[in-house]
Amino acid sequence: MNYSMIRYLLFRLLRIMGYLLILPLIVALIYREFDSAISFLILVVIMITVGIIGSYKKPSNTVIYAKEGFAITAVAWILMSALGAVPFVITGTIPNFIDAMFETVSGFTTTGGSILTSVDNMEYSVQFWRTFTHWIGGMGVLVFLLAVVPMAADGYSMHLMRAESPGPVVGKIVPKVKDTAKILYLIYFGITVVETICLLISGMPLYDSITITFSTVGTGGFAIHDSGMGDYSTVSQAIITVFMALCGVNFTVYYFLLNRKPKEAFAIDEVKYYFAIIGIASCVIAGNIYSAGVLTDIRMCFHHAAFTVVSIMTTTGFGTLDFNNWPMLSKEILVLLSLIGACAGSTGGGFKISRALIVIKNARNELNFVVHPKAVKRVYMDGHTVEGTTVKSVSAYLGIYVLTLMVSIFLVSFDNFDFDTTVTSVVATLNNIGPGLGMVGPMGNYSQFSPLSKIVLMFDMLAGRLELLPIFVILKPKTWRK
Amino acid sequence: MNYSMIRYLLFRLLRIMGYLLILPLIVALIYREFDSAISFLILVVIMITVGIIGSYKKPSNTVIYAKEGFAITAVAWILMSALGAVPFVITGTIPNFIDAMFETVSGFTTTGGSILTSVDNMEYSVQFWRTFTHWIGGMGVLVFLLAVVPMAADGYSMHLMRAESPGPVVGKIVPKVKDTAKILYLIYFGITVVETICLLISGMPLYDSITITFSTVGTGGFAIHDSGMGDYSTVSQAIITVFMALCGVNFTVYYFLLNRKPKEAFAIDEVKYYFAIIGIASCVIAGNIYSAGVLTDIRMCFHHAAFTVVSIMTTTGFGTLDFNNWPMLSKEILVLLSLIGACAGSTGGGFKISRALIVIKNARNELNFVVHPKAVKRVYMDGHTVEGTTVKSVSAYLGIYVLTLMVSIFLVSFDNFDFDTTVTSVVATLNNIGPGLGMVGPMGNYSQFSPLSKIVLMFDMLAGRLELLPIFVILKPKTWRK
Repeated sequence: MNYSMIRYLLFRLLRIMGYLLILPLIVALIYREFDSAISFLILVVIMITVGIIGSYKKPSNTVIYAKEGFAITAVAWILMSALGAVPFVITGTIPNFIDAMFETVSGFTTTGGSILTSVDNMEYSVQFWRTFTHWIGGMGVLVFLLAVVPMAADGYSMHLMRAESPGPVVGKIVPKVKDTAKILYLIYFGITVVETICLLISGMPLYDSITITFSTVGTGGFAIHDSGMGDYSTVSQAIITVFMALCGVNFTVYYFLLNRKPKEAFAIDEVKYYFAIIGIASCVIAGNIYSAGVLTDIRMCFHHAAFTVVSIMTTTGFGTLDFNNWPMLSKEILVLLSLIGACAGSTGGGFKISRALIVIKNARNELNFVVHPKAVKRVYMDGHTVEGTTVKSVSAYLGIYVLTLMVSIFLVSFDNFDFDTTVTSVVATLNNIGPGLGMVGPMGNYSQFSPLSKIVLMFDMLAGRLELLPIFVILKPKTWRK
Repeated sequence: MNYSMIRYLLFRLLRIMGYLLILPLIVALIYREFDSAISFLILVVIMITVGIIGSYKKPSNTVIYAKEGFAITAVAWILMSALGAVPFVITGTIPNFIDAMFETVSGFTTTGGSILTSVDNMEYSVQFWRTFTHWIGGMGVLVFLLAVVPMAADGYSMHLMRAESPGPVVGKIVPKVKDTAKILYLIYFGITVVETICLLISGMPLYDSITITFSTVGTGGFAIHDSGMGDYSTVSQAIITVFMALCGVNFTVYYFLLNRKPKEAFAIDEVKYYFAIIGIASCVIAGNIYSAGVLTDIRMCFHHAAFTVVSIMTTTGFGTLDFNNWPMLSKEILVLLSLIGACAGSTGGGFKISRALIVIKNARNELNFVVHPKAVKRVYMDGHTVEGTTVKSVSAYLGIYVLTLMVSIFLVSFDNFDFDTTVTSVVATLNNIGPGLGMVGPMGNYSQFSPLSKIVLMFDMLAGRLELLPIFVILKPKTWRK
């Protein structure tokens, strides 16, 4: 392990955290929340100072390998969450540190599950920081770090990218990883600006537009009112639906579109399935809640069904209606969609559609093999053959995913809550969605869980967001041997 | 496809079904249930006559391949279930054919889930037939067929064996498949006799001893009283616990023990894990239900915990207490155990411990690979390397398993029952357990499901019992092309 390089990068991260906290500091000053402003100021000064001192001398050996890449990613997210929790504690918003840490992990991992029973009376600056964590987490703090920190060793960048990027295949958009990160970051920034403007035009106040855009673009799900998205106009809700859907798309599509290569953009299999699933699921749920009498206007049924399907499928977790009261068919569709999740290479979480496609195609191959023993077992995606090692990795991923689910459900069941709550709290955190069913439904929250369960669910949020491997790698003692 | 061979074998099967129905006919005569006796007699005559005529001429080409083997297995189970349902319909016990078919599928697949709200007043002969289906299904009707029907083509036997035998690896106990089948059958018969005698000694009536032994040895779970196993003595319950546990063990162990090779018998990894899991789970649940005040006597807590753990883990599904009312920790442990299931090569169902071990070891390899990219990815079991193709098949199996679970849950949720019922009814049928939670708990039943759900759950029972592949193979049009 290249410990000096890990230390160097973590101190750089601390410095960046300091810079990022300047934004909520400004918000605190604008809204005259002076107590909070002082808290934020102290944190900014400490983090930037310590960060600069710690990362003053660059190590001579900057070469790091996959092992270090995975370890840095995991440690960085945990450190970020611990540091990000401090504003909640010192402003008195969430006095308990484990709760504050849960909220911050939920923020950075763009899960959006909260331990707060009410957010209506929160200070503007703290509320801003809370949603801002979604935006930071959204694209991955280390893609961000990559785009900001100038680096020589290209090999290491690739490994960080591999550990960080959401999905099984990192589309090598541009040969140099740093350039890729910058382009992704620009697209991300562009979507943020466009959504904020759209929401402003729809009549939403500026503060709401910015914070809700943060939550949308990061596919996070923290709302700034207890009513969730329920009190905004239908037009605003529709805009949010569109932007959630756009952020669940593989970002490679936007790169191709920017470069006027629509053919390549529309050749990506998983994006087609993504929109097909959203369309079909929205129609089925709309029909289901209409026939169950949830709403009398069929158009509003479709509006809310589409909003909810997109919200769950992209693992955002915003809510307009309490789907906990919907018929079981709708609820089960939502649970199944949440397990699949969004596209690889998007800001969304979950198992990812491309992985699901590989699992399905591999299963089909196994069946074909019985009927035609001489058939060649190959998995095709986007018109190309998927390499055997990728298929094997995805299979192993499914194994780790199922095992993590099972062990987590076991541990959370010590709290003796009902079956819905126990199972869906784990599903909702491991897939970075936020709301589940039962006590953790759209109108519920995670406040009643025991500290043990909260730690398990934090672990799941981090494991889910980092695509499982990094978080398990740091648990292995072997990783830390020289 | 060798259609003439398939036809020939299915007519043989019909004949054997005829012979098997002689037993409940005798029971009907003993208990003077003459109406039922006439029904059984008519069926016996028709089945044997048609069977003999249809299988009179052996086809010239007896060579069949894996494809045919899988197809025969699946079609045979469906045919057996349809035929086996007739006695329930014509005796008036279950007038509705779909319900009768559900009951019979549940019997032959050794699931043990029932659509009957009460079984206390059922006729002796019908009750006998109901539990006898478990015994027939237990070891696999086609292993049975193999041991009875003399066959030349050895290749075909191997394929049938592969499709039929419960588990990823068929231990080639004896080179000739027919001999293997005979030995397994003898062990099975031996266990049946010993358990019946033990139950008689414990004070259980003869009829109860025989029928409950059928349900135990097949790891089925049909009870003959509405109180399940609750009204029998503690000694009887303990005997049942022991025999359920023994039938969940890989039968290769008994073969080795019979041949005085204890070393080989105790070298099988999954059997060690099997007993370790039973031990730990029983202790945890005993402690959990004791502290929750379900029972005041700690010894009885352990007794019932062990009974329930073994019953669920071996996918038998007998109940002494209504675990639906136990704390969530105990319930979740039971759900997780039911997903794992028993040992490969036993009469139990589920994903199988050996498959779970391969998935876990493969996942661990993937993690090691990140830390040590030069490490060789190999999975070890019982001191040997597991072949790459086996690991791949098991991974594909996990994929098919998860997909089947998800699609089934989706379809069953149309019934709009609660989350526990919807999820665990699918888990309990796909793993051939019987009882789940909620409405399908130990004191509940499957009577309230819609015909669609019943068909889905029947499919799941068959898919689970036949290790998924055969039942999907017959759904592929390609399979049926010449």
